[in-house]
Amino acid sequence: MGLFTSDIKTLDDLFVHQLKDIYYAEKRITNALPDMISKASNAQLKQGFEKHLAETKNHVKRVEEVFRMHGVKADTIQCPAIDGIIEEADDVASDVADKPVLDAALIAAAQAVEHYEMTRYGTLIAWAKKLGRPDCASVLQQNLDEEKAADQKLTQVAESAVNQKAAA
Amino acid sequence: MGLFTSDIKTLDDLFVHQLKDIYYAEKRITNALPDMISKASNAQLKQGFEKHLAETKNHVKRVEEVFRMHGVKADTIQCPAIDGIIEEADDVASDVADKPVLDAALIAAAQAVEHYEMTRYGTLIAWAKKLGRPDCASVLQQNLDEEKAADQKLTQVAESAVNQKAAA
Repeated sequence: MGLFTSDIKTLDDLFVHQLKDIYYAEKRITNALPDMISKASNAQLKQGFEKHLAETKNHVKRVEEVFRMHGVKADTIQCPAIDGIIEEADDVASDVADKPVLDAALIAAAQAVEHYEMTRYGTLIAWAKKLGRPDCASVLQQNLDEEKAADQKLTQVAESAVNQKAAA
Repeated sequence: MGLFTSDIKTLDDLFVHQLKDIYYAEKRITNALPDMISKASNAQLKQGFEKHLAETKNHVKRVEEVFRMHGVKADTIQCPAIDGIIEEADDVASDVADKPVLDAALIAAAQAVEHYEMTRYGTLIAWAKKLGRPDCASVLQQNLDEEKAADQKLTQVAESAVNQKAAA
């Protein structure tokens, strides 16, 4: 992106820009999750992260499919938002020694990631529909549905076990 | 935060840490919104941002109230997540010349901010309850409810007018 140019002229340009942003984010999350898996103590949480890593690898493929469907070369642009969210997660995790408290911090970090993806997919789906691409919207919806389910699962793990242990 | 120390020992420490993070974020958003108001063209969007600026100033005060209730001095810690989200919003906005497309980009940026706040308040409320502070949870819930309402309003403005105009 150029600071003094206007590279985004149409909603289609904006859609492609945002697609490159989420493509970068999904790849970044794929790289961040193994570390979160290794730090998690609660078995349910560890399994949840492992399942979501497999899903995230699939999200990358679905985003590539949308690039193909839309006739645009798959490419990333750096996404300072997901960089910041993951940097913050790393900072906090490195500051927590107690295992149950660390689990609570990891859940909070993962939910921040999920919410970022949820808002981006929500926007991309709305734009795809306006651009007459319900086919792209439908593929992106599959990713959104899995992000929402992952977020709900994290809430359930937090409420059923992790937070109580962390507060003990 | 020290990189090689463990400053966060308990869930209470983590709660206070997260409170400082959202305090920083709310202040940062208060500073970012006037620029978004000046860039917005759609009247409903401009009004929505103005209303949310007033709400955000109130959110800062409510977070200060929670610090007081919890017996901790109100303080910020830098939050790379909100910094990244706002940096990305500025980058995209500077790349869009067309007014309706810029409105669509501003809505997407604002919804990313809302989602970040929603996840943080959701976590803070859950932790406050576990820490035996339903009074703090109740104040934080008021902020969460307004963030959710602001997000829904943005979706409505996007769907009812802005996206259609941006796609035209």
